[in-house]
Amino acid sequence: MSKPLILITNDDSIVAPGIRALIEVMKELGDVVVVAPDSPQSAMGHAITINNTLKLEKVHLDKELEQEYSCSGTPVDCVKIAVNEILKRKPDLCVSGINHGSNSSINVIYSGTMSAAVEAGIEGIPAIGFSLLDYSWDADFEPIKTHVKQIASEVLKNGLPEGVILNVNFPKLSKEEIKGVKICRQAKAMWQEEFDKRTNPQGKEYYWLTGKFVNLDKGTDTDEWALENGYISIVPVQFDLTAHHAMQQLNSWEL
Amino acid sequence: MSKPLILITNDDSIVAPGIRALIEVMKELGDVVVVAPDSPQSAMGHAITINNTLKLEKVHLDKELEQEYSCSGTPVDCVKIAVNEILKRKPDLCVSGINHGSNSSINVIYSGTMSAAVEAGIEGIPAIGFSLLDYSWDADFEPIKTHVKQIASEVLKNGLPEGVILNVNFPKLSKEEIKGVKICRQAKAMWQEEFDKRTNPQGKEYYWLTGKFVNLDKGTDTDEWALENGYISIVPVQFDLTAHHAMQQLNSWEL
Repeated sequence: MSKPLILITNDDSIVAPGIRALIEVMKELGDVVVVAPDSPQSAMGHAITINNTLKLEKVHLDKELEQEYSCSGTPVDCVKIAVNEILKRKPDLCVSGINHGSNSSINVIYSGTMSAAVEAGIEGIPAIGFSLLDYSWDADFEPIKTHVKQIASEVLKNGLPEGVILNVNFPKLSKEEIKGVKICRQAKAMWQEEFDKRTNPQGKEYYWLTGKFVNLDKGTDTDEWALENGYISIVPVQFDLTAHHAMQQLNSWEL
Repeated sequence: MSKPLILITNDDSIVAPGIRALIEVMKELGDVVVVAPDSPQSAMGHAITINNTLKLEKVHLDKELEQEYSCSGTPVDCVKIAVNEILKRKPDLCVSGINHGSNSSINVIYSGTMSAAVEAGIEGIPAIGFSLLDYSWDADFEPIKTHVKQIASEVLKNGLPEGVILNVNFPKLSKEEIKGVKICRQAKAMWQEEFDKRTNPQGKEYYWLTGKFVNLDKGTDTDEWALENGYISIVPVQFDLTAHHAMQQLNSWEL
């Protein structure tokens, strides 16, 4: 039996420690192809490059890999070009990450890591986004490697329901402190923006976007609750955005 | 009674005919504030600007408006900076568009127009994204103006369910040919990519992303069906991406 074909991407760029850790784990599960951004692409959401060209560079950061590429585009571009220009067949799994920082709750919307996984899902590939709640470049991925492997193995074994991908977030804890895995719903949360207004040397004003994450959800079945209480959160995510429950009400409007 | 406060943005840039048409209509319904990108931001998805500064410029494209700004950021940045730095109170409505081109079915995921509306929704503002199925800069928005006004009026009157925004697409038809409005679900569809591979003058390869839209959905309750059959489609869209129906199955896994 041939080994599973696994496509790996991320949004922190191909040299990020998070993707290198993910590659290490996935090599134990199958044949790995890496196509990842040549520069950081955090918070790019589901952006694609239509008004500019894309560059693809074969690289050899991992001597054991035959196919490793850096791409000038967004995470979603990476998945598209991998599927259409590099891979000879549809991969059995696409994994994105491991992101340096949380993609829980509403962050799923802004996340390049998750958008790459969603894009793979749209193309019919079972897909998982992995994120660790540690923004540091020196984040320690060792404690979560066995969990990453186990979750990916289960997806390879069971597949995923059509139109569903997984958003997996890990608390920043030691292996012993992690209490287990919880299947969760996305917590209701938002970012409270604070724009940092400055003046440039020419006297012109400009802004930096900063913000504070606010969890508006008291539920104990959410990803935020799981992570705060020492669990790994897995949220099944869909890209059919239809709010079916709202359709009846809209049908009563005068339109 | 004070007039409703309406925030307007888009992704085709502040000078696009689509947003100018939208401004014309909204001035009939309330006090209008415009904050829109200073350059085209199509296909930016839910990207935000965190690794660069944002510039905000007061402009006077419409002499009747007191508050009109161009912003160097993405559509989502525009909404964030409008709500946090420009508006004195939460607006009663946020409208995005009118987009030059379709944002039906899976396009909702890639669309800057829709992401601006989603961002407003996250911030608790009733929001609508409007798109016309005509990519041309010379697209004719006249036939749809009364519908845009009616739909916005209904949202101002009724509000929207929490966590729901509207994705409104108009067929490219004359006023007489438009058959009416249908409340729809998002059609299952995807883009089949075709990368156009070229060689630059230095002999280096590069790519243009192109593609073909493929509707995989035979349903007559979808936005694609409605548009193909002469109707305006309205899809209620949610940003809780949890695939609740998949949770039970995942709970049976060995994790």
